[in-house]
Amino acid sequence: MLTVSEARGRILAALTPTPPETIPLAAAHNRIIASSVIARLTQPPADVSAMDGFALRAQDAPAGATLKIIGTAPAGHPFPGTIGPSQAIHIFTGSIIPEGADSVLIQEDSSTTGDTVTVLETCQPAKNIRRAGQDFSAGETLLEPGQRLTPRGIGLAAAANHPWLFVHRKPRIAILATGDEIALPGETIPQGGIISSNAHALAAFVTACGADPTILPIALDTMDAITAGARAAAGADLLVTTGGASVGAHDLVQDSLKSQGLDVNFWKIAMRPGKPLMFGALGPLPVLGLPGNPVSAMVCALLFLRPAIDRLSGLPGAPPATEPATLTTPLKPNDQREDYLRATLTHTETGWHVTPFPIQDSGMLKTFANATALINRPPNDPALPAGATVKIIRL
Amino acid sequence: MLTVSEARGRILAALTPTPPETIPLAAAHNRIIASSVIARLTQPPADVSAMDGFALRAQDAPAGATLKIIGTAPAGHPFPGTIGPSQAIHIFTGSIIPEGADSVLIQEDSSTTGDTVTVLETCQPAKNIRRAGQDFSAGETLLEPGQRLTPRGIGLAAAANHPWLFVHRKPRIAILATGDEIALPGETIPQGGIISSNAHALAAFVTACGADPTILPIALDTMDAITAGARAAAGADLLVTTGGASVGAHDLVQDSLKSQGLDVNFWKIAMRPGKPLMFGALGPLPVLGLPGNPVSAMVCALLFLRPAIDRLSGLPGAPPATEPATLTTPLKPNDQREDYLRATLTHTETGWHVTPFPIQDSGMLKTFANATALINRPPNDPALPAGATVKIIRL
Repeated sequence: MLTVSEARGRILAALTPTPPETIPLAAAHNRIIASSVIARLTQPPADVSAMDGFALRAQDAPAGATLKIIGTAPAGHPFPGTIGPSQAIHIFTGSIIPEGADSVLIQEDSSTTGDTVTVLETCQPAKNIRRAGQDFSAGETLLEPGQRLTPRGIGLAAAANHPWLFVHRKPRIAILATGDEIALPGETIPQGGIISSNAHALAAFVTACGADPTILPIALDTMDAITAGARAAAGADLLVTTGGASVGAHDLVQDSLKSQGLDVNFWKIAMRPGKPLMFGALGPLPVLGLPGNPVSAMVCALLFLRPAIDRLSGLPGAPPATEPATLTTPLKPNDQREDYLRATLTHTETGWHVTPFPIQDSGMLKTFANATALINRPPNDPALPAGATVKIIRL
Repeated sequence: MLTVSEARGRILAALTPTPPETIPLAAAHNRIIASSVIARLTQPPADVSAMDGFALRAQDAPAGATLKIIGTAPAGHPFPGTIGPSQAIHIFTGSIIPEGADSVLIQEDSSTTGDTVTVLETCQPAKNIRRAGQDFSAGETLLEPGQRLTPRGIGLAAAANHPWLFVHRKPRIAILATGDEIALPGETIPQGGIISSNAHALAAFVTACGADPTILPIALDTMDAITAGARAAAGADLLVTTGGASVGAHDLVQDSLKSQGLDVNFWKIAMRPGKPLMFGALGPLPVLGLPGNPVSAMVCALLFLRPAIDRLSGLPGAPPATEPATLTTPLKPNDQREDYLRATLTHTETGWHVTPFPIQDSGMLKTFANATALINRPPNDPALPAGATVKIIRL
């Protein structure tokens, strides 16, 4: 069986980023840049004051000197004249330094009487001035393709005069839940059936990853129903199915999609929870088959679907970040499958401490909803005592 | 001057959560629950199989025994009969355990020939069964008010049969940038002016916090323009202004809003960057006045606006989480203002290492966009050598 990392590698290798689209700056939060954002202007555009105070010639401003205030220049209203000997203008943060001035005496180091200002602390040359281009210069690359836009990045793109940005289109992820036994919340539950939780949990997960989910109607366990579901996914960047991913009389997803030409890349991996994970392609449409069990489906989503969406979005598609944490209870030896134990995390002076839930049954959604971490154990990990260091993924 | 923590306390004390609204489960990701989510059914609804295999009576199934397969029960298709001595039915994960059976022999421990199954490993009583209600029981509280809905929480609410949820309405945050010198990206830049980056960076920040931003037109530095802007914010849960928050001839926000009845709670705090931070109320509308400097505005947003939005959303409104990190370069002593230095973070085997940018000028947006952490220094912090431990906030 494939390892988790091999399986993720195969998925990522099969996916390419979505094409770029033009969107307004205001809508660009969290999107992935497709073309470099290049400064269209120089910032600051000229030498400007970094403080409220007086623009003057430093040579005129030893402590005790008195200068004549010949004008005022709020930001946005540059002083049109030139500063001569023993002259000053009242200036504010962001105001352009007028011609002739070479320094700024800050307000706190001055005292004013009528139209004169007295220097309380000697003003050194070139003080409190932000130089033209100190932040960036026209033509400079500010943001690179493959970066995710943060509020700070959007501020930077705005300051560089970009009303529009080029980003990768949001990946379209079609979600197909299968099973005779499942019904949507509020619908009639079939005899012996349960409510479908996968489709909506996965849709929220897809949204959280920055992609657009489409929830297809639940497909019954028949070849026709599953085939129709797959057809409805045409135009998506990825079809995600849940349930029916392994090989058995009632696991029809593979058989149905194979009848439509599915090229199976792999269909089981050495991990727990979630062994029956399928990946393949239906013509141009990549297909990721998640387990039907809701806990397994969401753990697999974290390990495989998020990197896949990242890759489609224009990012490299990294595995979830792991951190070290200290076990609070012993663990039995692990078998040959990589394990992801549901756990809770607490922070103390000595770092992160992690406690696995005593029952790891993958049918327990309530426990899973309250988990704050997964403990990631490698295959054949020996028994671990309390106090051992383990790798965790924060949820 | 107020400390950062006192100022945050005053802001939080003045805010109350938005009222609840009913939304479809599918739209509930990241929203804050307003009413407990109570299980409407028991999960599993009956004892069900945890594995694919054979439901049988354990007393009939020592290693070597052969049993008759009298039926098949896929999930959603319960077996209607009763299991008698030396009988078994083929069963799947999630299938209801039929009457008479008390254990499940897993597929891997069995071998089948025609309609008989041979036991390869003795089947213990009560194995591989998920008991009715093992996950949750009807009437049980699953999610509490004040929790943020995750994809896992949405899965749990779905499984508990909730098509609708009650959540706090998204806070409406009106954003008013002020200044004669600023223009929107793509518009004509006034002489000596710059592009406004605050409004769009803040709008993205508000979105990231789970609230709805409204960007009001930029207000010129006149009493009338600012007053009109504030009026346009009627109906918002919070008005955020940028620029003009301190007291000076060209800082008109306070004066303009006071003419409309602004009750000022505070207007400066002992921090850097961002000393001129204003908070007050214009009748029922809370007003947070951020500095005009874009770096200061975003640092203040992180320290005050996010907790304010959290509080309006139904969360307590916690300060940003801090973690310890090791300084890579020495730091000079801090003055009486709490400091937030822009820095980059790297992770090594010995934990987080943090390097402050050499120039901390709050006019530098490019540097800020590339920062990955803030170093939080208390007032009057002594000089620190490389290797010292400092508190950081991850960005």
